[in-house]
Amino acid sequence: MHPISYYQEIISDHFSSLAIDKQPVNLYEPIRYILSLGGKRMRPVLTLMATEIFDVDCKNALAAATAIEVFHNFSLIHDDIMDDAPLRRGHETVHEKWDINTGILSGDAMLILAYQYFEQYEPSIFRDLAKLFSQTALEVCEGQQYDVDFETRDDVTIPEYLKMIEYKTAVLVGAAMKMGAIVAGTSIDNANLIYDFGLNLGIAFQLQDDYLDAFGDPETFGKQVGGDIIENKKTYLYLKALAFAQPEIKEQLLHLFSIQPTDNTDKIASVKEIFNTTGASEATRQAIKEYTLKAFKTLEKMDIEDSKKVMLKAFGENLMERKV
Amino acid sequence: MHPISYYQEIISDHFSSLAIDKQPVNLYEPIRYILSLGGKRMRPVLTLMATEIFDVDCKNALAAATAIEVFHNFSLIHDDIMDDAPLRRGHETVHEKWDINTGILSGDAMLILAYQYFEQYEPSIFRDLAKLFSQTALEVCEGQQYDVDFETRDDVTIPEYLKMIEYKTAVLVGAAMKMGAIVAGTSIDNANLIYDFGLNLGIAFQLQDDYLDAFGDPETFGKQVGGDIIENKKTYLYLKALAFAQPEIKEQLLHLFSIQPTDNTDKIASVKEIFNTTGASEATRQAIKEYTLKAFKTLEKMDIEDSKKVMLKAFGENLMERKV
Repeated sequence: MHPISYYQEIISDHFSSLAIDKQPVNLYEPIRYILSLGGKRMRPVLTLMATEIFDVDCKNALAAATAIEVFHNFSLIHDDIMDDAPLRRGHETVHEKWDINTGILSGDAMLILAYQYFEQYEPSIFRDLAKLFSQTALEVCEGQQYDVDFETRDDVTIPEYLKMIEYKTAVLVGAAMKMGAIVAGTSIDNANLIYDFGLNLGIAFQLQDDYLDAFGDPETFGKQVGGDIIENKKTYLYLKALAFAQPEIKEQLLHLFSIQPTDNTDKIASVKEIFNTTGASEATRQAIKEYTLKAFKTLEKMDIEDSKKVMLKAFGENLMERKV
Repeated sequence: MHPISYYQEIISDHFSSLAIDKQPVNLYEPIRYILSLGGKRMRPVLTLMATEIFDVDCKNALAAATAIEVFHNFSLIHDDIMDDAPLRRGHETVHEKWDINTGILSGDAMLILAYQYFEQYEPSIFRDLAKLFSQTALEVCEGQQYDVDFETRDDVTIPEYLKMIEYKTAVLVGAAMKMGAIVAGTSIDNANLIYDFGLNLGIAFQLQDDYLDAFGDPETFGKQVGGDIIENKKTYLYLKALAFAQPEIKEQLLHLFSIQPTDNTDKIASVKEIFNTTGASEATRQAIKEYTLKAFKTLEKMDIEDSKKVMLKAFGENLMERKV
């Protein structure tokens, strides 16, 4: 196993070499554009890494890794339309730069392109990859729908929220790693265990995202700290605070999440205070720890050398120790 | 081979039995809705029919036929958003009944569902079906993009137009039939020939659609006669008329296709007159005949019993003799 930067470079080189300059230009140029914006490429990196964990050259997994990243970018284009988001990775979103119709159609093409990358594998690997991909992609759509539904519901439960982030985010992390295992041809048990590793780490990562959105360091956190609070977003912190709060504080929180002041400074401070005093912050940190440990637990059962387990664990710890 | 109605009933029964009542409701209800609107189900019928042409029970092709129909309905949902169409099959379009975001996301889910229907075939058949499907689906996207591009171009050539309708419409007809051949396990030659049969019949069918839109019988034509003329749509008739017309008539046609009068009666009459006098109508009838004959030519090379060829030809003739 190599450092993340090693895999990132392989992915970056590979994406530079992808031929996405087909006709018609108006269909393929937005695809080329969003893929050129880069990002951390975390999902394809996980696919390559998983392949090496099972002792196979990670380059064999490049096509599967590409499919995962192209799918992820498809979902960003369509989600950005639904969220009416102007920016993505610091640049105009596709539907802003072109228009909504272009975003819809280029996104559709990317979803199909993702499947095509599996075609270079032999039939039984192809089938396993495409099957896992379809199930995962459908779950991501379901997760997105739950997220949309939750915006207008005031009775979202913690288990429902956890299911939403599992589907919307974590299953793709699990699938990215499992694809590496499938390409490597390891046992079904190992493949399922690394899926669970990725899935639980993905949930922990998303919960940490919720946490850092409120309590991250403004100097280093990529997004605006307090963004979720400004948007009245029902995160894990919020749902836990509602569950823990005494009636009076609960009323106060519900009120704070019903207003949209011009200056959000006081609102953010009050909400964070409630997150802390109700124990929601502590409960969130606890949940992050639990899901991380759950991920590490799956490593114990995996049939790989101990040195590989140590490396995977170090990767997970590194990921979860981020302050940004 | 059975009459069309026989296959339509099998498809209809099968779609009634499909379980599309999964969670979340807001994702799957629009899918259930559009599939319940029916339509002629021509594409899945062709898949079943092709399977029987190659002497295999058509029920084996039900999953592939379902994939084709689900994909077709996915493309209708997204196209209707792009065209801002209020009605589909006489009912509200999905984005009208719900909203654009629902149309985008439910459509995405349908595209993925389509792939899942191939999973019940063994790996090598699965791969052949999914590969053909991806290529075809991508071409349909490309065709849709060309169609969008053509709206704002005034230099569309006849070959470009033919390529557009081939991609947007005909490749799916060819693929529907080839999937039947793949499921039946016939030779690659036969599979490619029935693809060409469907492709050319699909082009002929779309050209006939252009023709009937102007010259169909208002009593029996499903859509508003003259609809393309009202919308200034650059059809085969229009492009041929432009190519054939003397300068003065060409100017007149260009003018007629730049106006949007409240009462279209005179405009429609004038345009049809130009289509007739320039020879565009005759050229279109000729092109329909040519593509139909091209389809029939592929039958001769096919390695099947003569009685099957006679039936396929009769099917094609029946399809092309429609006045509606």
